[in-house]
Amino acid sequence: MARVYNFSAGPSMLPEAVLKTAQAELLDYHGSGMSVMEMSHRSKWFDEIITNTEAAMRRVLNIPDNYKVGFFQGGATQQFAMVPLNFMTTGTADYLVTGNFSKKAAEEAAKFGTARIAASSKDKNFTYIPDVAAIDYDPNASYIHICQNNTIFGTKYVDVPQVNGIPLVADMSSMICSEPVDVSKYGVIYFGVQKNIAPAGMAVAIVRDDLLGKAAKGLTPDKIPTMMNYTTLLNADSMYNTPPCWCIYMTGLVMNYLENEIGGLENMQKRNAAKAKVLYDYLDGQDFYKNPVEKKYRSMMNVTFTSPDADTDKAFCAAATEAGFVNLKGHRLVGGMRASIYNAMPAEGIDKLVDFMEKFRREH
Amino acid sequence: MARVYNFSAGPSMLPEAVLKTAQAELLDYHGSGMSVMEMSHRSKWFDEIITNTEAAMRRVLNIPDNYKVGFFQGGATQQFAMVPLNFMTTGTADYLVTGNFSKKAAEEAAKFGTARIAASSKDKNFTYIPDVAAIDYDPNASYIHICQNNTIFGTKYVDVPQVNGIPLVADMSSMICSEPVDVSKYGVIYFGVQKNIAPAGMAVAIVRDDLLGKAAKGLTPDKIPTMMNYTTLLNADSMYNTPPCWCIYMTGLVMNYLENEIGGLENMQKRNAAKAKVLYDYLDGQDFYKNPVEKKYRSMMNVTFTSPDADTDKAFCAAATEAGFVNLKGHRLVGGMRASIYNAMPAEGIDKLVDFMEKFRREH
Repeated sequence: MARVYNFSAGPSMLPEAVLKTAQAELLDYHGSGMSVMEMSHRSKWFDEIITNTEAAMRRVLNIPDNYKVGFFQGGATQQFAMVPLNFMTTGTADYLVTGNFSKKAAEEAAKFGTARIAASSKDKNFTYIPDVAAIDYDPNASYIHICQNNTIFGTKYVDVPQVNGIPLVADMSSMICSEPVDVSKYGVIYFGVQKNIAPAGMAVAIVRDDLLGKAAKGLTPDKIPTMMNYTTLLNADSMYNTPPCWCIYMTGLVMNYLENEIGGLENMQKRNAAKAKVLYDYLDGQDFYKNPVEKKYRSMMNVTFTSPDADTDKAFCAAATEAGFVNLKGHRLVGGMRASIYNAMPAEGIDKLVDFMEKFRREH
Repeated sequence: MARVYNFSAGPSMLPEAVLKTAQAELLDYHGSGMSVMEMSHRSKWFDEIITNTEAAMRRVLNIPDNYKVGFFQGGATQQFAMVPLNFMTTGTADYLVTGNFSKKAAEEAAKFGTARIAASSKDKNFTYIPDVAAIDYDPNASYIHICQNNTIFGTKYVDVPQVNGIPLVADMSSMICSEPVDVSKYGVIYFGVQKNIAPAGMAVAIVRDDLLGKAAKGLTPDKIPTMMNYTTLLNADSMYNTPPCWCIYMTGLVMNYLENEIGGLENMQKRNAAKAKVLYDYLDGQDFYKNPVEKKYRSMMNVTFTSPDADTDKAFCAAATEAGFVNLKGHRLVGGMRASIYNAMPAEGIDKLVDFMEKFRREH
């Protein structure tokens, strides 16, 4: 079968060129006589892979020298616990709840201290982002936590909180590498790689080095579970124990692709903006499908829409799958449809989807 | 370059037939039009993969119905913390220290309660296993923890502790699936997959269901970090969040290989015993190389040996690498050499290694 257009929210499409490289090297990486899946993580072969992957990520994301970069396991969900365990030094932090994952992050943090909900967009079913300049932050907060792009609800921050001296911690799982980011605005950036970078099984954290060596109030660093201690794992260059080697390798291939094939995140942003515009323009130009999100806060990565009723939504998803557009069903929390159009979704995938949507509209 | 004989202690060799299947399916899994690396973990495609992987593992390891099987992230090191957090209900547990990883497991457990060292083989540099019938166990211990095969020191338990009513918890990372195991003797079995099963990035835990729903003394289950809570993750069938899909897929391929190509663990054990015998018989029949382990406790998976001095060890490893026998250098804690001869190492790899060792001996 031909490859399909996969609109999954994650895990999701990877660049075909990257998959072909992985396929070609699968039994013998660069003349080593081994698969990357078989290599000792302490070998010179893998040392080169992990070193080059981090270096490429630093270039692509323009990460300043005073930030450490680490490869972790357990996905963003594990980061939800690690952030408070390591950084909630005052015993309290401010959480902005703009969707499912920011809510889960706050719930997890509440196990280890006070996770104060400083703002929420629940009143309008998470269809917008609160004005970050108008929020009453706790001056005693150890950090302010946001989820910068909300995969399920299709929203994205335009401005991020910048409050004197309080580090900003951001979950960027569903928008990382889709556009340039000013890392210096953040204390911590973390993301699961399975949406826009690599296969599932890894999270990356980018941590400003002055935040390390501490622990949640009432705890000392030596009481944090080792695999949740940023300081231990970052000081060991992500090699405290065997890292997820294949995910690191795939991440390296995608970083090379972003750098050399795409030409960096400015170019990636242009491509992504153009792709999203095609879909949003179509949605705005007709009345059959509706997108519920306040325009200013529309996500460039996750585009949600509904047809006139739930039965038609169902018929749409079935017909789309049949036509080779898969995983368009919306999350169970919101229903309807969602097209996740990450970096690896080609522009023609969007064009063809719009053609299909218009054909379906006429027939219904 | 031809594929090498890779004696790495982990990550390590995978069956070539399995790698070829992964390679062939890499861009299009079974006509789905997607790579397994791109699939939604909630899709019917992946649901089939994870369901079949668990079912095959249950058949291969003959796991009774009252045990749950889960796929976790963070390797065995994360299990070192999860075990006490979930199971140290009396606030104390007995640890048998027979090498580096059992020592680390005890140190991690000491963060959450009393990890009592009930026995240790440190007095003879971990070259034997204490007599498990002669140990004075704490009747109040929540569990007894062992590392059943010691990767670095090349030892293995012959008998395992069976103490009335006290669950046995075993790290089987470096011997899992090398031979049949009577799961009913254990409360919990866990292992990182990167030594004998799949690429790095996953641990499996097999947990007797009466042990679930609890927490370490002084803690309640809802205070355990979610990604360290066996009950939550097992009740969600390893899908609480996005699991390490590629590792699960590869594990499934290896389980199929064990079941259908090898014919089960009895056959695997015969092959492994024959391979280990060739190497140990050679070691026992000459005086140039020495294996320090008490014969009764020799590992079938990790065979350690030294040449007359450290310089010759170094020369040996260099010449071996040149000849296509890679990763034979011993762990930095013990020096010398170590041949990890897991399931995927073919018998001819051992035969050729022995030929090479003999040639090297004559030349030195």
